[in-house]
Amino acid sequence: MIGTITLSDGSGGLQSNKLINEVFFKYFGNDILNQMNDAAQVDIDFARLAFTTDSFVVNPIFFNGGNIGKLAVCGTVNDLAVSGAKPLYITTAFIIEEGFSIKKLEEIVKSMAGVANEAGVKIVAGDTKVVEKGSVDGIFINTSGIGRIYDNVNINCANAQVGDVIIINGTLGDHGMTIMCERNKFIFEGNLKSDCACLNSLVDTMIEAYDGIHVIRDATRGGVAAVLNEISEFSNVTIALEENNLPLKEEVKGVTEMLGLDPLYIANEGKLCAFVPGAYAEKVLSVMRKHPLGTDAVIIGKVTHELGQKVYLNTVVGGKRLVDMPSGIQLPRIC
Amino acid sequence: MIGTITLSDGSGGLQSNKLINEVFFKYFGNDILNQMNDAAQVDIDFARLAFTTDSFVVNPIFFNGGNIGKLAVCGTVNDLAVSGAKPLYITTAFIIEEGFSIKKLEEIVKSMAGVANEAGVKIVAGDTKVVEKGSVDGIFINTSGIGRIYDNVNINCANAQVGDVIIINGTLGDHGMTIMCERNKFIFEGNLKSDCACLNSLVDTMIEAYDGIHVIRDATRGGVAAVLNEISEFSNVTIALEENNLPLKEEVKGVTEMLGLDPLYIANEGKLCAFVPGAYAEKVLSVMRKHPLGTDAVIIGKVTHELGQKVYLNTVVGGKRLVDMPSGIQLPRIC
Repeated sequence: MIGTITLSDGSGGLQSNKLINEVFFKYFGNDILNQMNDAAQVDIDFARLAFTTDSFVVNPIFFNGGNIGKLAVCGTVNDLAVSGAKPLYITTAFIIEEGFSIKKLEEIVKSMAGVANEAGVKIVAGDTKVVEKGSVDGIFINTSGIGRIYDNVNINCANAQVGDVIIINGTLGDHGMTIMCERNKFIFEGNLKSDCACLNSLVDTMIEAYDGIHVIRDATRGGVAAVLNEISEFSNVTIALEENNLPLKEEVKGVTEMLGLDPLYIANEGKLCAFVPGAYAEKVLSVMRKHPLGTDAVIIGKVTHELGQKVYLNTVVGGKRLVDMPSGIQLPRIC
Repeated sequence: MIGTITLSDGSGGLQSNKLINEVFFKYFGNDILNQMNDAAQVDIDFARLAFTTDSFVVNPIFFNGGNIGKLAVCGTVNDLAVSGAKPLYITTAFIIEEGFSIKKLEEIVKSMAGVANEAGVKIVAGDTKVVEKGSVDGIFINTSGIGRIYDNVNINCANAQVGDVIIINGTLGDHGMTIMCERNKFIFEGNLKSDCACLNSLVDTMIEAYDGIHVIRDATRGGVAAVLNEISEFSNVTIALEENNLPLKEEVKGVTEMLGLDPLYIANEGKLCAFVPGAYAEKVLSVMRKHPLGTDAVIIGKVTHELGQKVYLNTVVGGKRLVDMPSGIQLPRIC
């Protein structure tokens, strides 16, 4: 690669993958990293651990349904949970702009502590850097986490198989549309709200119902489209979605239609896609619907018998539309 | 706390500790975090693990002896090593400014891979965020790491005891003075160079020579003064340093004298202070001196019989001078 970094290099789509492959993997590549799971799976003594990191640069830092701190804890808890792990320990690292309000910082820290407590994870180490005014936009937070992978569970983005159905735990695009509207100061009727939430207790319920779930991924940057394209590639399968089944809040439907956006590409922060063998789908779905974070759970598609790595949508009007990997500039600083 | 964040809140000195205690610990506090070691010590199954995080915001990003990427890997490897752990796995998270040179990024990534390889750690997960021009100054990097704590080793900043001698593995202030001079474009004769290095193989050698070492800390932000004050506080001991024994490179001596700076307060990135019972000091010192990163190792002081938490210096001219916790603005973005 040559030239300079562009916003689309950080969007979680095609350009991000190019940067990852041609710069990061070129030098860092190894058997664990190359699996490209949400969390690395590492062995220490007899324990199988999941280990993950994410930096958060969301703008605005406070939004309806959360703030950068809650997002940071939920994001890392979720990366561990969707790897089939019990999230245990989290680190937090703050980069703060000189002049940032201590009251705001305290509000962020307080909500991080609250959500970590609810999720049952301990914040065990931290770091604080302060940089001169103008060297960072307010506050950026990194969270890293480790979890213990459950025995007899093997959840991996390379495991999707023909016959799997794809379940999502609720509506699409709530986080992304909330951020977009708040940033641009769009005012709508209704209540756009981020779905930012820790999904580990939902995942626990799902694994308890059926411990053979093939893949679980949370659909963050790049939305459901990015996540399903990655799974399609790593599992070498074709995925068919049913447009009729895609769950959308009225508010999100209205805004995306007006702005000409596809909700499949909009970021979520409390949504997961699970690949479950057809025979166990109803069982998993029924426990999900009893969980507060899964009341709107629904089957949105399946892995088909077709050959090749692709994701397509059976549209409401009876057509087929390819759902590509997102490309170009998505909304920056969505998380 | 009220008001706004200042640069000194991130300096690793008194103000940092106030922010940590009054904001972070107020909400995050728990038995593991409160130990304030360089890495958290956590148990998973039968394994004792060390877990740590650091963000790096150094300016300039390339300097004599290293760059922000090498610094990030070394920093996290060192935090694990000085906890008595074998560093195993590292995550890297990049926050990059739109427009950043891909050639520079590749140079940074390449040096990270090289130093990780030398240190025997695997980079297993990562994250990349790109933010708009002006929202971050170039590139910031977070590294988090986990290591396996050696059996029968108990290295902790609360373990210093009367009778311990304090060994440092080489000269003071090399990193801090290199950054300061390069940032301000001071030109000196001689060769100021950061000591940025991974210390894990040195620590391995020390532990092999004597597995009962009480404390090891790397002396980064705030220098040897900050680290010894923290150990004095956590171990509730008095520490006496010998000015005569403090090792300094000619270049650093010259610049610090000219600028009126105290090398005890200047950051290092490849220096550790070890607290070793007097009876084992010569044994540990002799293996250190045979290691490339310990050729200048020397005893700089001891834990005295005096009561109270303080650090003082027996000066060359026969006086005593208190070595306080650093206070006020240190050089920002030193690491």
